[in-house]
Amino acid sequence: MKRRLTPPATRPPAGGASELPIGVFDSGIGGLTVFDAIGRRMPRENLVYFGDTAHVPYGTKSPEAVGRYSSEIARYLDRRGIKALVVACNTASAVALPRIRRSVRVPVIGVILPGAKAAAAASGSGSIGIIGTEATISSRAYVKAVRRLRPAARITGIACPLFVPLVEEGWWEHPVTEAVARRYLAPLKRAGVDSLILGCTHYPLLKGVLRRVMGPRLALIDSAERTAVETEALLRRLGLERRSGKGVHRFIVSDGPERFQRLARRLIGRRVKVVEHRFE
Amino acid sequence: MKRRLTPPATRPPAGGASELPIGVFDSGIGGLTVFDAIGRRMPRENLVYFGDTAHVPYGTKSPEAVGRYSSEIARYLDRRGIKALVVACNTASAVALPRIRRSVRVPVIGVILPGAKAAAAASGSGSIGIIGTEATISSRAYVKAVRRLRPAARITGIACPLFVPLVEEGWWEHPVTEAVARRYLAPLKRAGVDSLILGCTHYPLLKGVLRRVMGPRLALIDSAERTAVETEALLRRLGLERRSGKGVHRFIVSDGPERFQRLARRLIGRRVKVVEHRFE
Repeated sequence: MKRRLTPPATRPPAGGASELPIGVFDSGIGGLTVFDAIGRRMPRENLVYFGDTAHVPYGTKSPEAVGRYSSEIARYLDRRGIKALVVACNTASAVALPRIRRSVRVPVIGVILPGAKAAAAASGSGSIGIIGTEATISSRAYVKAVRRLRPAARITGIACPLFVPLVEEGWWEHPVTEAVARRYLAPLKRAGVDSLILGCTHYPLLKGVLRRVMGPRLALIDSAERTAVETEALLRRLGLERRSGKGVHRFIVSDGPERFQRLARRLIGRRVKVVEHRFE
Repeated sequence: MKRRLTPPATRPPAGGASELPIGVFDSGIGGLTVFDAIGRRMPRENLVYFGDTAHVPYGTKSPEAVGRYSSEIARYLDRRGIKALVVACNTASAVALPRIRRSVRVPVIGVILPGAKAAAAASGSGSIGIIGTEATISSRAYVKAVRRLRPAARITGIACPLFVPLVEEGWWEHPVTEAVARRYLAPLKRAGVDSLILGCTHYPLLKGVLRRVMGPRLALIDSAERTAVETEALLRRLGLERRSGKGVHRFIVSDGPERFQRLARRLIGRRVKVVEHRFE
């Protein structure tokens, strides 16, 4: 066999493929809630986060644009070397998962199916609510996923465009946020939903407000936690868990690091040091 | 002289350069308020609008990214053929005007200087407020422009990140918007400003709320109107006014047209038909 002159794009590191990081990708900072859940559940894993801050937000962009941005980032992470890719962005998971899967060689996990599974299991009455960005709600991705698992479910989806800016402003417990939530969630209260999918990675930070508005008996389905559970199960199935040591976490963004670092601290309560990468 | 085989990028149309459209560029839909003001003031002029909906919003991006996006669009419009370029986006005007000017051959008008001039003239007390995006306020572009015209002015600038999403949600007269405004504008009330620069193209739609919060005696400086006045003066000076006929208006966006068309109708109360264009 002829020796290759150029190395393959991804060379398994000395310790084998399990040493490679898990890639976690989001439109901006929201996916850090998923990243954080994975890091806490699998402290041995190396993780690399990519925030597409040059194009954030995805929730108001066209499915075509989201597909283009997402698959480019997925290819970049794949070339860089990852053992699995978590699409931590609900919008990208909702509108671009097939395209992302076609772009890479590693297994890809979205946030829609884990959330849908948890909601289908949690609901007693079968009345399930979904909140998300305009693009996620219009895609009906959650509705289709829940229906496949629980065909008789009654599902109400509501786009909540102001929630992301309110979270990024740090107004998680602000009276304004509660007033906005009362307005947005009124149709869900009328529909009597007993479980609510938080279909955007920023929303777990609004749990307090959402509980006050919707009442204490509502099951709040946080895709971040569920996605971490699925990721762990997948790595185990593939024999790709990292078995010793402490994982290294790296952060890459497509625009300057300042705003990302400031918001990351607010979002997951820790300092992150960012490496910038530009697609040109 | 040798005949050129390839035509120059811009060929003056049959009626001469004055037949060329004025280019109006914004990060998204906000610049339509400037476009609309120019169209009403100069109904004979052909206008072409470019909304960079693939990258919107600019207000939370780095100056480097805003400079890159803006100069690429300026070059595109210049090659397409325009007689002047209006940078209708406050963020791009604040952080990227010199770079845009270097990218094109036509005169470039930003929105900062017209707004600063109007505020410097309108203020009795010399206490002037500025509201805008994070990027516009951090750039201190308005502060510097006002200071050059009126060195003793006391200037207070406040970033209002929730105003754009509130306008895009259509909540122009909503109690939530008023509560947000009361919170944001408190430092301006304390500073006793007597004129307020609306340093973002979305904000003219909040005039009602701003007046209720700040009191009826405040002078609200709308850069859209002032920029239309400056554009007219410039064309006159250069002898480039179009002297007869009714202007044709064209709209180009860098992402899909649906959301733009929906919001445009809300923003300027008319239907716009978008011709799409993507940079790859």
